[in-house]
Amino acid sequence: MAPPSDAQRLANTPPGAPPFDVMRAAFVELRVRDLAASEHFYSDLLGMIVSARTPEAVYLRGWEERQHHSLILRQGRAGQVPAASRLGFRVRAEEDLDRLAEHFTERPSRWSDAGTDPGMGRSLRVWDPFNYPLEFFHAVEQFESQHQRFDLHRGAPLLRFDHLNLHSPRVEDAFRFWLSLGFRCSEYISTDDPEAERITGAWLLRKPTVHDVALTAGTGPRLHHFAYWVAEPAGVLRACDQLAGGYQSHVIERGPGRHGVSNAFFVYLRDPDGHRIELYSCDYYTGDPDHKPLRWSVNDPRCRSFWGARAPNSWYDESSLLIGPDDHTVAIEPANVDERTQHTEVMA
Amino acid sequence: MAPPSDAQRLANTPPGAPPFDVMRAAFVELRVRDLAASEHFYSDLLGMIVSARTPEAVYLRGWEERQHHSLILRQGRAGQVPAASRLGFRVRAEEDLDRLAEHFTERPSRWSDAGTDPGMGRSLRVWDPFNYPLEFFHAVEQFESQHQRFDLHRGAPLLRFDHLNLHSPRVEDAFRFWLSLGFRCSEYISTDDPEAERITGAWLLRKPTVHDVALTAGTGPRLHHFAYWVAEPAGVLRACDQLAGGYQSHVIERGPGRHGVSNAFFVYLRDPDGHRIELYSCDYYTGDPDHKPLRWSVNDPRCRSFWGARAPNSWYDESSLLIGPDDHTVAIEPANVDERTQHTEVMA
Amino acid sequence: MAPPSDAQRLANTPPGAPPFDVMRAAFVELRVRDLAASEHFYSDLLGMIVSARTPEAVYLRGWEERQHHSLILRQGRAGQVPAASRLGFRVRAEEDLDRLAEHFTERPSRWSDAGTDPGMGRSLRVWDPFNYPLEFFHAVEQFESQHQRFDLHRGAPLLRFDHLNLHSPRVEDAFRFWLSLGFRCSEYISTDDPEAERITGAWLLRKPTVHDVALTAGTGPRLHHFAYWVAEPAGVLRACDQLAGGYQSHVIERGPGRHGVSNAFFVYLRDPDGHRIELYSCDYYTGDPDHKPLRWSVNDPRCRSFWGARAPNSWYDESSLLIGPDDHTVAIEPANVDERTQHTEVMA
Amino acid sequence: MAPPSDAQRLANTPPGAPPFDVMRAAFVELRVRDLAASEHFYSDLLGMIVSARTPEAVYLRGWEERQHHSLILRQGRAGQVPAASRLGFRVRAEEDLDRLAEHFTERPSRWSDAGTDPGMGRSLRVWDPFNYPLEFFHAVEQFESQHQRFDLHRGAPLLRFDHLNLHSPRVEDAFRFWLSLGFRCSEYISTDDPEAERITGAWLLRKPTVHDVALTAGTGPRLHHFAYWVAEPAGVLRACDQLAGGYQSHVIERGPGRHGVSNAFFVYLRDPDGHRIELYSCDYYTGDPDHKPLRWSVNDPRCRSFWGARAPNSWYDESSLLIGPDDHTVAIEPANVDERTQHTEVMA
Repeated sequence: MAPPSDAQRLANTPPGAPPFDVMRAAFVELRVRDLAASEHFYSDLLGMIVSARTPEAVYLRGWEERQHHSLILRQGRAGQVPAASRLGFRVRAEEDLDRLAEHFTERPSRWSDAGTDPGMGRSLRVWDPFNYPLEFFHAVEQFESQHQRFDLHRGAPLLRFDHLNLHSPRVEDAFRFWLSLGFRCSEYISTDDPEAERITGAWLLRKPTVHDVALTAGTGPRLHHFAYWVAEPAGVLRACDQLAGGYQSHVIERGPGRHGVSNAFFVYLRDPDGHRIELYSCDYYTGDPDHKPLRWSVNDPRCRSFWGARAPNSWYDESSLLIGPDDHTVAIEPANVDERTQHTEVMA
Repeated sequence: MAPPSDAQRLANTPPGAPPFDVMRAAFVELRVRDLAASEHFYSDLLGMIVSARTPEAVYLRGWEERQHHSLILRQGRAGQVPAASRLGFRVRAEEDLDRLAEHFTERPSRWSDAGTDPGMGRSLRVWDPFNYPLEFFHAVEQFESQHQRFDLHRGAPLLRFDHLNLHSPRVEDAFRFWLSLGFRCSEYISTDDPEAERITGAWLLRKPTVHDVALTAGTGPRLHHFAYWVAEPAGVLRACDQLAGGYQSHVIERGPGRHGVSNAFFVYLRDPDGHRIELYSCDYYTGDPDHKPLRWSVNDPRCRSFWGARAPNSWYDESSLLIGPDDHTVAIEPANVDERTQHTEVMA
Repeated sequence: MAPPSDAQRLANTPPGAPPFDVMRAAFVELRVRDLAASEHFYSDLLGMIVSARTPEAVYLRGWEERQHHSLILRQGRAGQVPAASRLGFRVRAEEDLDRLAEHFTERPSRWSDAGTDPGMGRSLRVWDPFNYPLEFFHAVEQFESQHQRFDLHRGAPLLRFDHLNLHSPRVEDAFRFWLSLGFRCSEYISTDDPEAERITGAWLLRKPTVHDVALTAGTGPRLHHFAYWVAEPAGVLRACDQLAGGYQSHVIERGPGRHGVSNAFFVYLRDPDGHRIELYSCDYYTGDPDHKPLRWSVNDPRCRSFWGARAPNSWYDESSLLIGPDDHTVAIEPANVDERTQHTEVMA
Repeated sequence: MAPPSDAQRLANTPPGAPPFDVMRAAFVELRVRDLAASEHFYSDLLGMIVSARTPEAVYLRGWEERQHHSLILRQGRAGQVPAASRLGFRVRAEEDLDRLAEHFTERPSRWSDAGTDPGMGRSLRVWDPFNYPLEFFHAVEQFESQHQRFDLHRGAPLLRFDHLNLHSPRVEDAFRFWLSLGFRCSEYISTDDPEAERITGAWLLRKPTVHDVALTAGTGPRLHHFAYWVAEPAGVLRACDQLAGGYQSHVIERGPGRHGVSNAFFVYLRDPDGHRIELYSCDYYTGDPDHKPLRWSVNDPRCRSFWGARAPNSWYDESSLLIGPDDHTVAIEPANVDERTQHTEVMA
């Protein structure tokens, strides 16, 4: 058997043991152009629960979620482009926040007091080495779960926040960064060149599902999508039917279908600002410590589209910009590897 | 091979060729004690569409249906017991009504003018030889189908009226009557006694599904249930979840489950007056003229419960009384065969 | 309200009353290049039941079907192109065959004796005015249905033959022909030009489902696809998973998805010769005589793809050739209207 | 607000912080009377994968599982009653085994060398204070997951071992024991007596799902059931259809249905020795440290049967005996609280 390539060695690197416990991906904040239109999309069309409203923002959660919110819609100012302004992660204890602050002293960061967001304790925002705006928090108000109020559910329904997918110009570098935060890899895509195999996509986890964060090669740093868990494929189909039945099929960008990677049964939707949300079902348990990453060849069309349906170019090209410490969008650069062109699934 | 028994010969009798064309079971009218409560059940909980309201009645239809209504809820007077007052069948042409009137000159009958019910043409009510109140009609106002307004559907949803199930004290006699109206048999249940095999249940059709009318042995004449078609088992489960999620699980009498007979994936609900409605899915095509009836032994527990779950006694014992020509409930008598006691599925 | 266009008048024309009763679309015969490979596809991958084998042909049926076969695979000779050689329709009685022979005296035709195909009585093949090879039969051997042998089912499973879809160069002319055979229209697609609205697709039925025959504008005469009914969307997804799980995702051409037209939940597969089979679910009841056709604009992307996913060009361009009376493929001509280019769903 | 009762205080007690990490419930060993019959049940009927066979035992796993096995069937000797002989838990590291041995010095225990079971490292069996035979292990051979070999799956399919459900004569005492091992509570059932509220059932977890171990009041110590995860309700229904289609409906004891507790969509089957296996779907994420237990009243019929279908008495009364250190079955005693009689769901 051939010795593992550098890419394979990286994918199989055990996670670091940092002095803090980042438990899971937990929320996203989107800057939107029309707060009412965005609330209509997430609340009326997708059926999410509104937890709180302020003059500038709406806070929403899924039907299973007890955490006060997992999605923040924030009204941008006139002329501002839509963007993702915070990628939220929950840590196990308040002290973890202080340890993260120490860990990131070299990076731009910002503390927010408890109550800055309704229902949430103090939080620490850090722009990581690639300028993704990560926000860490521990304390958060708890609601009763509404997962069995089936009489109130709509569409899928969206049960809980599942993961963030990041367009990354340098996937392997970003991969090392997330390892250092204690994440490990469940699946990855790499090139077939025996001399220079390169990772073009990586699925990284803290909670024992397929992922909390995915890194996929693309112009970035940008947010490709965030995802909510739905209980079963039938729910994903129902969401599509409800959207199309109400003359909203234009918001469906890709799917429904199954990914080879992660085994997800998915559909991707675009909100009024083009932010992309995935309804996600059917992944698997990854919690055992000797759970080894699964490799997919970038040339295997099943990895991104298990049944073969082609993704539209927009799905590969378009992503949400991010907000930097200066409140402007973060500069982006093209990816150093190309995942897409080798896929037979992509349209000519 | 043994010669067929009398029961088998009856089951395989070709349908008569009467001078009228009864196309299909098409509606039911229920006398209810509290019209608002009944409307709430069918419209709010089960999500049916209200087509019209009068001071005394509410007219409803399923999401796929173009016919003005398939369910009529009619307020009874103080002290009246709940009952089924009309079992509706659509005929192919206006002339069929006149031919039916001629056919039934020996039986009590009643014409209603067009417009007596909103949206419906003239109709002929006949009390058949067993005193079931059959109502025949042809002309009916058409709506646009709402089958693709998935955004408005609730629960299952209920797509279209499918069939009527009658508790019959003399199943074999009733079977012969329905043959004379042009119905034929798709499935039947009979006893195993080689000397005296008796039919205890029969599924009879005009439209090419498993049935328009089922006859099952029981104290009668009574209406055991009426059924609406839902597209798939997932819809039946969702209806149960929505009912239970809204604290209405007490209306679920039996199921969800699968019948051996008809292959139906079903659930049975009881409305506020105890009238029983089935949500019904998964039957099959029966339209070819040489389609032979399928026999089930009354001792095969799979025929009524394919997976083995036991039906509650209420499902065997309770049914809706019927209204006779004198506006009082029709007298009932016990069945001359017992379907239930031979079933292992029944609780001791 | 504007007066109906010529196209709308055609779509709403009542069916003719010919002196024969063509009950339903019932089978297809495919000329294949490698009989073993084709049998593997339909029997092993799709799980159909083999009813009979001869040295030159394999006869298959679905799990619900009692009719001896609904699919014939016939080995072509060296150098012959794959093609569809018979489009089968069942008639209600033997006499209907004689009346069809009289009706088609002007067209090439051919009688086959009972037993020419295993399990089938005499049959009449007629090349209709557009050179589609229609084959009519009545007598056919019956098997017991295997619809409840769930332990033996594979994939979807394919329950019963549902319909034929024909690529037609002159849809409106073909529409009139099928009206004359007693078919009527459930849905149609037409252009939006108020002066010259043209029908570009029509769904025509005898049995009370959405269709037995669909006519869609395209180079022809050719067979676009034949379809089998599956019980529910979950079965269609499972078929896709089983194909892809066994490394056969390349046979999936389009879907799974939902059509606006017919409400079908579908997937299209290509067999080893490129013949196209649809797994089809979720249509509706059309049996009432006043059931009016539903119109879709050719410019409404929902009509062919309710959720918006784009069809590959192959789905619009490729179809099975047909076999003429001389045993050669029938000459084809381009369509006189273009359905595809007006669709936003089609890839540039 | 009333102060919490003792029962509520217990349910909300934070887990202990023992010096070992029991990660999750991981396998069960069953002593069977006819090894071939049991293998047929789990492998042929339920479709599990056989990982290894020895003359005395068969080792099986689910389709997603990489761990060598999660079910061991072991041939009992003539005259021995069927029983559960090991309840397996995976620990995070080899050292955890030594720490567990120290922790349990007062209890009967037994080390097994690596390789005693095929594919498994050394293990420690301990009879806990209630005489349940717990077996802890860390090292185990890994297979490639077969979760996407959908072409090979049968029925549900069974993806992975999910939990153990124990009949416990003293639920509250057992609850305290499991807290001491680091487990915490997701849901519990308790009586309504304000003076003496008692816990009658508790769902306890290490991995962040609803449970690894459930304790339910009943004669014990016994194993009520073990459960495998299936991806979706449609899979549970398919398993029922496949069993019944193959004339095995007698193995279905209860369901399919939904539990209020845990939100599971379930079916319970009995193997040839009466051991009970649950096919389990639809639970939820419980991984956040402030995830509070959900209380159900023992008098709420929805807690055990969300839709209301009654459980057979056998489901409450019957359980698998356990094997003690002397290789004989462990003595049992009746429960000190009665869960069942207060349920309206139970048959008179």
